Amino acid sequence: MILIFVSCSDKQDKETEIVSETKHPNLILTNKSVAEIKLQLGTIPVFDETLKLAKEAVDLEIEKGIDVPIPKDMAGGYTHTQHKLNYATMQKAGVLFQLLGDEKYAIYIRDMLLTYAKMFPTLPLHPQTRSYSRGKLFWQCLNDSNWLVFTSQAYDCIYSWLPKEQSDYLNKTLFRPYADFLSIETPQFFNRVHNHSTWGNVAVGMIGLVMDDEELVNRALYGLKKENLDLKAKDNDGGFIFDKDGKAGFLANLDSPFSPDGFYTEGPYYQRYAMYPFLIFAEALQNKKPELKIFEYKNGVLIKAVDALLNLTDDNGEFFPLNDGQKGMSHYTSSLVSAVDIAFYYGSQNPELLSIAQKQNEVQLDASGLMVAIGLKENKEKPFIKKSMELTDGSKGDEGGIGILRYQKEDEKLALVLKYTGQGLSHGHYDKLSFSFYENGDEVLQDYGLARFVNVEQKNGGGYLKENKTFAKQSIAHNTIVQNETSHFNYDFGTGSAHHSEKYIFDASNPNFQIVSAKEANAYPGTEIHRTMIMVVDESLEKPFVIDINKIQSNKNNNYDLPYYYFGQIISTNFDYNTPKTLSILGKKNGYNHIWNEGSGIANQESIQFTWLDNRRFYTITSATDKKDEIIFARIGANDPEFNLRKDPSIIIRKKGVKNTVYASIIESHGTYDPVKEVANNAYSNFSKIEILKDDANYTAIKIQFKEGKEKILILSNIDNSIDKKHSVSINSKDYTFTGSYYYN
Amino acid sequence: MILIFVSCSDKQDKETEIVSETKHPNLILTNKSVAEIKLQLGTIPVFDETLKLAKEAVDLEIEKGIDVPIPKDMAGGYTHTQHKLNYATMQKAGVLFQLLGDEKYAIYIRDMLLTYAKMFPTLPLHPQTRSYSRGKLFWQCLNDSNWLVFTSQAYDCIYSWLPKEQSDYLNKTLFRPYADFLSIETPQFFNRVHNHSTWGNVAVGMIGLVMDDEELVNRALYGLKKENLDLKAKDNDGGFIFDKDGKAGFLANLDSPFSPDGFYTEGPYYQRYAMYPFLIFAEALQNKKPELKIFEYKNGVLIKAVDALLNLTDDNGEFFPLNDGQKGMSHYTSSLVSAVDIAFYYGSQNPELLSIAQKQNEVQLDASGLMVAIGLKENKEKPFIKKSMELTDGSKGDEGGIGILRYQKEDEKLALVLKYTGQGLSHGHYDKLSFSFYENGDEVLQDYGLARFVNVEQKNGGGYLKENKTFAKQSIAHNTIVQNETSHFNYDFGTGSAHHSEKYIFDASNPNFQIVSAKEANAYPGTEIHRTMIMVVDESLEKPFVIDINKIQSNKNNNYDLPYYYFGQIISTNFDYNTPKTLSILGKKNGYNHIWNEGSGIANQESIQFTWLDNRRFYTITSATDKKDEIIFARIGANDPEFNLRKDPSIIIRKKGVKNTVYASIIESHGTYDPVKEVANNAYSNFSKIEILKDDANYTAIKIQFKEGKEKILILSNIDNSIDKKHSVSINSKDYTFTGSYYYN
Repeated sequence: MILIFVSCSDKQDKETEIVSETKHPNLILTNKSVAEIKLQLGTIPVFDETLKLAKEAVDLEIEKGIDVPIPKDMAGGYTHTQHKLNYATMQKAGVLFQLLGDEKYAIYIRDMLLTYAKMFPTLPLHPQTRSYSRGKLFWQCLNDSNWLVFTSQAYDCIYSWLPKEQSDYLNKTLFRPYADFLSIETPQFFNRVHNHSTWGNVAVGMIGLVMDDEELVNRALYGLKKENLDLKAKDNDGGFIFDKDGKAGFLANLDSPFSPDGFYTEGPYYQRYAMYPFLIFAEALQNKKPELKIFEYKNGVLIKAVDALLNLTDDNGEFFPLNDGQKGMSHYTSSLVSAVDIAFYYGSQNPELLSIAQKQNEVQLDASGLMVAIGLKENKEKPFIKKSMELTDGSKGDEGGIGILRYQKEDEKLALVLKYTGQGLSHGHYDKLSFSFYENGDEVLQDYGLARFVNVEQKNGGGYLKENKTFAKQSIAHNTIVQNETSHFNYDFGTGSAHHSEKYIFDASNPNFQIVSAKEANAYPGTEIHRTMIMVVDESLEKPFVIDINKIQSNKNNNYDLPYYYFGQIISTNFDYNTPKTLSILGKKNGYNHIWNEGSGIANQESIQFTWLDNRRFYTITSATDKKDEIIFARIGANDPEFNLRKDPSIIIRKKGVKNTVYASIIESHGTYDPVKEVANNAYSNFSKIEILKDDANYTAIKIQFKEGKEKILILSNIDNSIDKKHSVSINSKDYTFTGSYYYN
Repeated sequence: MILIFVSCSDKQDKETEIVSETKHPNLILTNKSVAEIKLQLGTIPVFDETLKLAKEAVDLEIEKGIDVPIPKDMAGGYTHTQHKLNYATMQKAGVLFQLLGDEKYAIYIRDMLLTYAKMFPTLPLHPQTRSYSRGKLFWQCLNDSNWLVFTSQAYDCIYSWLPKEQSDYLNKTLFRPYADFLSIETPQFFNRVHNHSTWGNVAVGMIGLVMDDEELVNRALYGLKKENLDLKAKDNDGGFIFDKDGKAGFLANLDSPFSPDGFYTEGPYYQRYAMYPFLIFAEALQNKKPELKIFEYKNGVLIKAVDALLNLTDDNGEFFPLNDGQKGMSHYTSSLVSAVDIAFYYGSQNPELLSIAQKQNEVQLDASGLMVAIGLKENKEKPFIKKSMELTDGSKGDEGGIGILRYQKEDEKLALVLKYTGQGLSHGHYDKLSFSFYENGDEVLQDYGLARFVNVEQKNGGGYLKENKTFAKQSIAHNTIVQNETSHFNYDFGTGSAHHSEKYIFDASNPNFQIVSAKEANAYPGTEIHRTMIMVVDESLEKPFVIDINKIQSNKNNNYDLPYYYFGQIISTNFDYNTPKTLSILGKKNGYNHIWNEGSGIANQESIQFTWLDNRRFYTITSATDKKDEIIFARIGANDPEFNLRKDPSIIIRKKGVKNTVYASIIESHGTYDPVKEVANNAYSNFSKIEILKDDANYTAIKIQFKEGKEKILILSNIDNSIDKKHSVSINSKDYTFTGSYYYN
């Protein structure tokens, strides 16, 4: 039993009362955690500092006065920004009221809520008509749900302080109608398996928990009943609105887009966005409905998801921009502060999470943040080591995945990310078997990410740009095979959503030979693409190199393109090429219309080399070619009337009119340039050649020729990936025997 | 008197002897400084650490054994790199022998010198024929001079240790012939006013001082006699070889290219390169010929030059790439380590230099480095504050200059560099009145710098690329006015060298209104260009903004282009434009042939705006236009068959068929984008318009319209820059009176 004495305020005629543990707050903060935190305040640096910043932010807003404008603007505009600021400020003010006991924060929340309650019943749908589910305060229900998720927390913090007639009034006039609006009145928003619906479910569930409204809580957990829904309806992003199996609600959103490994099928950028509602509602459920054991749901997938997300970052903590992802978003974002703290508290108190929290230098202002702050104070953190790993996709983990190969030695860190997932819902890109490559947090071979300037109003109100569909999602925008200048699945969302790539091998057990391999048989009917990427540590070289093999088998002749999106400046090539006097587009559609052809040549030999300089490092791609293969120097930026695209370059290896073929390349980071010393170290590739020795249905064999003379043979079994299978292959009259799916020596 | 006991070595049959103060070393290290340093060793962290690294480097080389290959390769190639390594190692080994007393270092130097002495007489000119002055060990005499400057120091360190017959042998077989080769045998290299000759002079002078060869020392100081020289001869860079006034030698090279402020006319990149020979020879002269008072020469220009050079850097210590300058070169380069230490020791022990030395974390291993290391140990350093300043050009300081306007408030640092110098010798660019603009060490509006990958062998052997002449030196490659698509002085070196811009105003006394203004009347005969740039702090704005006014008066109609080379992505424009389906070049020659036209439009209004996003900051240029002015979106990269150019963008404001005109623009950094919070702050310009109110021979008046409604009037006196002149101007029937050359209110 904890006693809190609340004094009378000038505005609030209210008796001092006793607040019991069963009373509010009991959502995120609880009476128990408030008491524990108060005992520690002033002795827990990260928590204290976060609280201080929150106080400064809220005090500033209180000084400015309450501003609840009539909704009008798109994202980035004034009314949008003000309503966002309001819910963020209320949420913080609730915490301040509980932890500091200053009633001015409760009064601020109350007065603002009363203002919203007065306005809400008068609101039509938001005047901006762009969304498939227009909101009330915002142009889309998604943002209204954000409002309700945060405001619920503020409301919980003052619920017991409010006179009952006032909370009854707010429940009846503002919150229950708002929850109904976001659910039964907009089923196309609420009843999906999608990050939008997760926010909607959580908004309804959080306010339901605050109001002890079981109907709302159940609606949140299990969704609306399905009746007469249009299964073909699509949202603004082109995604299907309703799940054909009829699943909906918070638990369905946990079941379906998450794989057992905690990978979220939309990709890390949207996972980051969804983690906050997933985890904050889980925390609230754990506090109010511990019998649900929500953190144990699906083998503890919520905690695993945090670990997966942290592993889907580069060396700077920035998320790999798989599918629609804006570059620069990182583990420093506030939803990851919550995620890390909640995962630490409700998980196994993994000290590696503390080192992330230490970088974030901020905690959630609740029991989880308290425990993290105490852990940091006691120096319990350990470095978060990102290891090579596979993250499966699909609710059962059997729909392909992401393979991440990593290397770290002292300051040198390499990361390779191969994507062989499912479509990834409406934010998915058409890039089966595409990859990206990083060195020390710098992009070496990039994934373009999305075409959008999030919240930059001048750029289409901060929303997706049309080039996202016409370029960024197209196959040619990625480091993967494109057949006949058409995108995978012919850019059809329904077809793409019905398929996924198949993992063939993931084996990172040998740090000197890490391999990931996957097949894609549906992107182009009649064609199978089998990509294998290997990170090899060779004792004679300073850094590992990557072998990249794309084996293509088709039932007809095709043209194939394989782009590598590098950065920086071309240093040398070992093939001749011509550059045109005027620049033309590479093709008429499917993203090719956005690419300039800056030059091209014919390989005219069996192995080409291409060296470039970026970030003061020298890189080379050595690639086995047919003599008639074409090499194209390409650059993004054509048909871009509003300059929405980045003018990034790529080199494209083109094979024309072939049925079965193999692309085999070595990708290496081999040297450095120091502009102060003006010294180029190891500016030349370590390899002289890569050659295809054999390629049939069963085996593909490659010879790698080092410049110093050494040779290595790589043999891949193309159809049997069992680890105990014995193989015997004859290559150029020499017999090779090996066990398992590959040979390298 | 100091006693050094030298023991017999296995190879050296030599009696122990007494070394007096008059004996070697007496060039850079002296017997006195060696004794002082030895007393302090182990207690002076930066010095100790530098010595440790030197020892590691030399020990590694000694282990590898002596390698003196027959000269063969260009810069970046094996023999070139090995001979460079040899002189650097010998120089360090000399220091190690003196400071550590370990004879193995002396033996290493002796054996290497004997190897060189054996090879030298057999050497023809270097087989690579590209240079106007081919060397012996290297493809150009410049590198041979580097060799001799460093090797002289090593030789001095073992001179007294060597038996006299051995030093006599080396003097006669290697050093005197080498010095004669670099001077009387290659007068076209030795007898110039140019950084090449400075190295040549110093090489001959240093070895002369070591050998006590007065003839060589005098040759170094005063040059060769001039007889029958071809005054029109040019070097590889297109520079004239011989000074028409007949000046030559070290002192002439101090007189002529340095202004009284210490600005070196070739620009900071080459000044950085020349500082080492200038200062190391000065130190040697001070040690051996103190009566010359070399550090007082020309009012102490050598020390001033170090200060000037440190001020010609951005916030990261990187030199402004004026003229031929490779980006990334910075005050961390080893010649600046020497320069800072020597300037500290022989100058006024300015504690601000210590903070640079602290960043360098390295000192010169002599008395000057000792003093710096002790200063750092005693925490005497003070921040090096880069202030706004003008650096005059010309040996008398009356040939224009560089105006640098800076702003610093907490972490926010702006720097604007306006160039109104002379031609800058053979490395000069044709960019009168061009400017560059920096924020916090990032380039906002860039100077392209040179077109070269120094020491990257694949790129033309590391030498200048042909695009340096066809693009980087051309006027259109710079942020300055181009008339009729021809470069300044019609790209004629002789004409350019005969002229310089004229400073009109430099006044940084008011931190809220810093102004620099200069005129150029010779770049285009019959046309005068008058550029004024002002950095204005306005209390209503977060950061200062820049006013940029180019007033053009001509005796005939012309077309004018003004490019702004920005970086990043276009966010918005307030004018319409079209983008072409295919890209064509902007013009046929003079650098225009290297630029793609990515789109263009007609201003169609009196003030245009262009906003872009770079480095997570929003920038806007607001520019007064005539309705028919053309705006061109340009990008470097056309006619670049080897991809030697960076594909950087610019926006060009084009005025066609006008005689007299004014370009008036506001350049502002106004907002930020945070990709983690996904928040765009102040993404819009603070200005709505800039207008030209009046423009005649006497006055130019501008009105600046702030978005919040405020207006400011700027009036410039175009022909009278006296500070006490009283002006009265009527604009739109309103009278303005002011004293001095400008009015702003």
